Amino acid sequence: MAVDLDHDPLVVDLAHRTAEFVRTVVVPEEERYGGVSAVGGEPMRLRLQAAARDAGVFAPHVGTEWGGHGLDMRDRALVFEEAGWSLFGPLALNIAAPDEGNMHMLEAIASPGQKERYLRPLAAGESRSCFAMTEPAPGAGSDPAALTTRAVKVPGGWRIDGHKWFITGADGAAFAICMARTSGQPGDRGGATMFLVDAENPGMKIIRHIETLDEALFGGHCEVVFDECVVPDDAVLGEVDEGFRYAQVRLGPARMTHCMRWLGIARRAQRIAVERAAERRLFGSRLGELGMVQAMIADSEIDIAASRGLILRACVDLDRGGSGAQSTAIAKTFTAEAVWRVVDRSLQICGSLGVSGDVLLGRFLREVRPFRVYDGPSETHRWAIAKRVVGQQVRTMKEDA
Amino acid sequence: MAVDLDHDPLVVDLAHRTAEFVRTVVVPEEERYGGVSAVGGEPMRLRLQAAARDAGVFAPHVGTEWGGHGLDMRDRALVFEEAGWSLFGPLALNIAAPDEGNMHMLEAIASPGQKERYLRPLAAGESRSCFAMTEPAPGAGSDPAALTTRAVKVPGGWRIDGHKWFITGADGAAFAICMARTSGQPGDRGGATMFLVDAENPGMKIIRHIETLDEALFGGHCEVVFDECVVPDDAVLGEVDEGFRYAQVRLGPARMTHCMRWLGIARRAQRIAVERAAERRLFGSRLGELGMVQAMIADSEIDIAASRGLILRACVDLDRGGSGAQSTAIAKTFTAEAVWRVVDRSLQICGSLGVSGDVLLGRFLREVRPFRVYDGPSETHRWAIAKRVVGQQVRTMKEDA
Amino acid sequence: MAVDLDHDPLVVDLAHRTAEFVRTVVVPEEERYGGVSAVGGEPMRLRLQAAARDAGVFAPHVGTEWGGHGLDMRDRALVFEEAGWSLFGPLALNIAAPDEGNMHMLEAIASPGQKERYLRPLAAGESRSCFAMTEPAPGAGSDPAALTTRAVKVPGGWRIDGHKWFITGADGAAFAICMARTSGQPGDRGGATMFLVDAENPGMKIIRHIETLDEALFGGHCEVVFDECVVPDDAVLGEVDEGFRYAQVRLGPARMTHCMRWLGIARRAQRIAVERAAERRLFGSRLGELGMVQAMIADSEIDIAASRGLILRACVDLDRGGSGAQSTAIAKTFTAEAVWRVVDRSLQICGSLGVSGDVLLGRFLREVRPFRVYDGPSETHRWAIAKRVVGQQVRTMKEDA
Amino acid sequence: MAVDLDHDPLVVDLAHRTAEFVRTVVVPEEERYGGVSAVGGEPMRLRLQAAARDAGVFAPHVGTEWGGHGLDMRDRALVFEEAGWSLFGPLALNIAAPDEGNMHMLEAIASPGQKERYLRPLAAGESRSCFAMTEPAPGAGSDPAALTTRAVKVPGGWRIDGHKWFITGADGAAFAICMARTSGQPGDRGGATMFLVDAENPGMKIIRHIETLDEALFGGHCEVVFDECVVPDDAVLGEVDEGFRYAQVRLGPARMTHCMRWLGIARRAQRIAVERAAERRLFGSRLGELGMVQAMIADSEIDIAASRGLILRACVDLDRGGSGAQSTAIAKTFTAEAVWRVVDRSLQICGSLGVSGDVLLGRFLREVRPFRVYDGPSETHRWAIAKRVVGQQVRTMKEDA
Repeated sequence: MAVDLDHDPLVVDLAHRTAEFVRTVVVPEEERYGGVSAVGGEPMRLRLQAAARDAGVFAPHVGTEWGGHGLDMRDRALVFEEAGWSLFGPLALNIAAPDEGNMHMLEAIASPGQKERYLRPLAAGESRSCFAMTEPAPGAGSDPAALTTRAVKVPGGWRIDGHKWFITGADGAAFAICMARTSGQPGDRGGATMFLVDAENPGMKIIRHIETLDEALFGGHCEVVFDECVVPDDAVLGEVDEGFRYAQVRLGPARMTHCMRWLGIARRAQRIAVERAAERRLFGSRLGELGMVQAMIADSEIDIAASRGLILRACVDLDRGGSGAQSTAIAKTFTAEAVWRVVDRSLQICGSLGVSGDVLLGRFLREVRPFRVYDGPSETHRWAIAKRVVGQQVRTMKEDA
Repeated sequence: MAVDLDHDPLVVDLAHRTAEFVRTVVVPEEERYGGVSAVGGEPMRLRLQAAARDAGVFAPHVGTEWGGHGLDMRDRALVFEEAGWSLFGPLALNIAAPDEGNMHMLEAIASPGQKERYLRPLAAGESRSCFAMTEPAPGAGSDPAALTTRAVKVPGGWRIDGHKWFITGADGAAFAICMARTSGQPGDRGGATMFLVDAENPGMKIIRHIETLDEALFGGHCEVVFDECVVPDDAVLGEVDEGFRYAQVRLGPARMTHCMRWLGIARRAQRIAVERAAERRLFGSRLGELGMVQAMIADSEIDIAASRGLILRACVDLDRGGSGAQSTAIAKTFTAEAVWRVVDRSLQICGSLGVSGDVLLGRFLREVRPFRVYDGPSETHRWAIAKRVVGQQVRTMKEDA
Repeated sequence: MAVDLDHDPLVVDLAHRTAEFVRTVVVPEEERYGGVSAVGGEPMRLRLQAAARDAGVFAPHVGTEWGGHGLDMRDRALVFEEAGWSLFGPLALNIAAPDEGNMHMLEAIASPGQKERYLRPLAAGESRSCFAMTEPAPGAGSDPAALTTRAVKVPGGWRIDGHKWFITGADGAAFAICMARTSGQPGDRGGATMFLVDAENPGMKIIRHIETLDEALFGGHCEVVFDECVVPDDAVLGEVDEGFRYAQVRLGPARMTHCMRWLGIARRAQRIAVERAAERRLFGSRLGELGMVQAMIADSEIDIAASRGLILRACVDLDRGGSGAQSTAIAKTFTAEAVWRVVDRSLQICGSLGVSGDVLLGRFLREVRPFRVYDGPSETHRWAIAKRVVGQQVRTMKEDA
Repeated sequence: MAVDLDHDPLVVDLAHRTAEFVRTVVVPEEERYGGVSAVGGEPMRLRLQAAARDAGVFAPHVGTEWGGHGLDMRDRALVFEEAGWSLFGPLALNIAAPDEGNMHMLEAIASPGQKERYLRPLAAGESRSCFAMTEPAPGAGSDPAALTTRAVKVPGGWRIDGHKWFITGADGAAFAICMARTSGQPGDRGGATMFLVDAENPGMKIIRHIETLDEALFGGHCEVVFDECVVPDDAVLGEVDEGFRYAQVRLGPARMTHCMRWLGIARRAQRIAVERAAERRLFGSRLGELGMVQAMIADSEIDIAASRGLILRACVDLDRGGSGAQSTAIAKTFTAEAVWRVVDRSLQICGSLGVSGDVLLGRFLREVRPFRVYDGPSETHRWAIAKRVVGQQVRTMKEDA
């Protein structure tokens, strides 16, 4: 079990049941399809989500009015980590990216009508969604302000034109939340707006699936073009020109839920390695009695525990209504790298078995690598973390002067 | 400020006042003596402790009946980190090693009479103490069970013979808590007893001050010989043959308070570096705007935050009455290395200034290095951490078989 | 260009021509097939090798009597690194694993008849081969002495029984060099013999292709069973019971040629990243002007240069007739990890492009990961390196005593 | 022994004799004075240098006309590493910083008269010198172009005004080579001139010894003021306004000789640790048989070997007349960090003994730390390394466009 720091017993119980569900129901499906979601496809998604509903562990994150358990961030940390034990665990619980982050944002920002139309079926697993923000260079990427996709006012609505890529889950999504510039120029820190675009809209086209190192997320990573894509006025999510602010509403918590889920995979990888270390003998010793293997196991325990502590700290900030800008950046940077190290060490401990498809460690390695890039590369986060610290110091020095 | 996770406002206030006290009263004395306690000597100790008493921040750790604030481990984390901002902060608050750990153990184990005689003056700062456990190789060190110092029953008491070293604070201590073997052989995991030995006892002799890289702890690191050292029966602390168990009572919390204090120095080092980064210009930029400097600053923020999370986690375990064996080992290993990295980076950011005596970073580097060795070297902790994890797995596999 | 330390101008020229050939002829084929050899298949192999022959860069490693250039290890370092610029470069030059190592061993150990029959077509690229040593746990792996496959003398030959896996290139190989125990027990450091086994032998069966993280090596990684596999007396390569010694003849140089080839990929990855850093702009700067990106680029330059220096050092040892046990272990351990770091950094610099299939960095990451495991995991090499150093010290101390 | 890659047997012999001399003659003096040069003082210097002369190992670097052995950089690598086995070895051979670098520059640039007057006694160990370049911020430091010290033409000579610090060996030096700006403004990449300033010049004043982490270099690190310091015309070393170019003449080789010397200390530290690992027993094993200790020993072997390879590579560049800008930056950056890691690991292996003054490891740690700062901090070198690589790519892309 993961964290048990002052959680409500009901939440602890939900986490336990989630752990049990994932181990017994989800892992067999994951191993059957080698962790590649496209192989299992929609039938697998429906099967897993039905089972999660039966097990009473479905949609822990959304409010009870949307069929969920209404967990705050701190409690999500406990449950999501257990769901993350399998690559398909989050899908089963309907807390996979990008749907989970979209539900979070819709619950916070959408109008009642938009909630009924988009959030309700999404929370119920009846539809999927995508979040269309990232653009090929030199557009919005590490620097969201570089946003180039434009939305121009037309009678009764908006016309969106732009080019997006790495739009996770786009293929099969019922709708996209598209971020487009409604004022200003690429580079400006304001002027973006969020739009709800239905999949049927002929102006939104998926032009390819981008082949990527990771293959577990449902619906792939797509390149999407908005070409004279006209949407009605009520497709605006929240207020016009407030898109960058909403993006932050989504991004802080989404960073943390990513961390929680991947921490689950780190623990799974560590478990596989420890099982191997406990049973394999080498040079006359149990593998797990060799000092260098022990060092790897210990370092992974430390990495897991440290990640968990940082996630918890950031979740408390978010639950208290803070932006969590600094603490989520710290937690995300550390966890993304720690998870990578843990999976890499686990594979090393398993040796040639580890690089084979006989265990899922190679698959995990492929899946977690991109996390050091998306949701802000480690370098961008480090830059932002330092900037806040140095900026604060510069202000203090000016006040003192 | 350090941690603010669900602490009582009174504790938060105590932490704030401690921070203020250390910055305004303690740091000037520390800088005056270059962080070397022997230069300031006993007059400095008395001066600082009187000031701490006046400021109402003295002895936060012991119970109110001994003149303290009675903080649990979780609250200590908050206050000790602030005290640790200066090398002499813990001395000022009377929470420096080894006295702090000794008070913790006396409060937990000593008889009422022993408490009055030893704990009361110690808690009041009227006396100092030392903990005589470590022995030169091949005696008790990384492996406490290697204990060779022996105590033999004699009429009315015990005769102790043995050789100890790295006995911090021995010179000037009013008494030692000496760990000696009362049964079994070196290598046995039981059979140790704790004895209270007065400094006046002619059988206990300090034979030298060991020159060490660190020089901030009061009373130095001494080599001590017990030579036909006879103590009365009531010198036994707790029960005969229970010494190893008591050592654990002391060591778990003592590990954490070490971490808290050194985390304060890490934050201080980071502050010095950030001040430098904010004011120094290089190659036409502010130092703090150069990417590699930003990376160092961010990594230190991450290291500090991760250490704090791990310490908190372990403190919760200890406050709940657990042994904290695994969580304190994890927190100690990570924090000792993280603190070292932070100080090292801070020095690097300051460049030639950093290696000079014009700032205290070189001194901090010297002071924190030994923490990766004492209280269990990182390697011993990693071994223990892995052993528990693999051992648990082996047991699980046997049960399943 | 790679190393230019006192090489013959003819060798430098060969390296230059190799570099040119790989960039212009091999890279397009590699990109066409995404670096997966099975997609290009035998036609691609034949096409590339014919082109290499035409370009005069084919088989630089074998003697001129076998159609090669007869380079020593030091010169191979220069040329192989250039060949390694593409995943298929070594295949094109007929210096890919395991054929290259097998040719090296055959040239050193085989009888004249064996050379004509096995080495000549192999050196000409008319056939392929495999090396059947590794066994599933608890057999020969990190510890070759654990060898369990047995060969028993029968009239006129030997009968081999055993189970091998991770036999690279087995599928399609004309013959295997199989290592089997002819005396002693698993765990004994002697008693192995090398056998030449023709693919047509009904006693040798490929039972599966092992799915692995890497997919560039020709013929895959196979699981192979020897089941009452009878070979004639002249199938013995070298002397009976000398197999472990011959394995060392093969392994030292083979470790180094692996390093040379992978160093080429590291340089290629670095080039891709530097191109990206030179053209991409972020936050108003060229990517390559951001400090953290510069740090990554510099670290990769350092890693590449340090690897090259260590490889050269080991090659000089081997060329002088030494075992190179220590220097090849040092070079292999460092290079395998350095190459991994370089590819990982390159991918990070390229961001989301890096994790996509639009560049080959994700492919490279998959290909180089197993190198930290095969040819001795890093941990086994570190153990051996330290053992030699400490063992030497123990002997010195005993002599002094 | 260190490198043995194609060296003349006479040089190998000189290296052997140097190794023997340092171990038997120098190390006892070093241990006697705890590695602090000021304790031994001038008598020790004279005693050690006389002994080196007797042993025929004195001044290996200067030409035979100046009483030396005339080694090129590649051969120096072999001999200096052996000299560096002791903190005082370089002093004994008269190849310590800054004299060694000054001799190198004088031999390359000085006029015949200047050579007789300054180089001859310096090479003979009859005098010492210093190099006055570094200035407090915002002057010349990581960025030499920030040079603020000015020299203004006056009749018959120049008047120098400026402020220098970290001028190693200034106290007791017979003369300084002072770098001052003769044209342009701080920030300009040209306009510096080198001046020879006699210690008797009343315009040059040592205003303090800077207390530093390191204490082994002779004559300390001083703060020096040039205050209306008038020197004659023939005090100009080389040409006016060519000082930055000459600084490079000095800096490239000086970087490498620093590396060679510190590599000797790294090997010494490793030896101390290996001796400990070979004799100490812990948890029933020899310390050197514990996996985590083996990992540290192996990593240090790797670090030492890799440093050596990089130094050799850079020396070959310099001997061939190249600037060695890239290869010396690579070698310096890696070696400075590698040496630090090796000493740190050695101390860790020795545990509490390691942090004590009973072995010199704590002293070594203090001595090698500044090497990551002086001669260009690691960050400045990484910046320069990347800048060259990216700059080359940008040029290539422009040519192709």
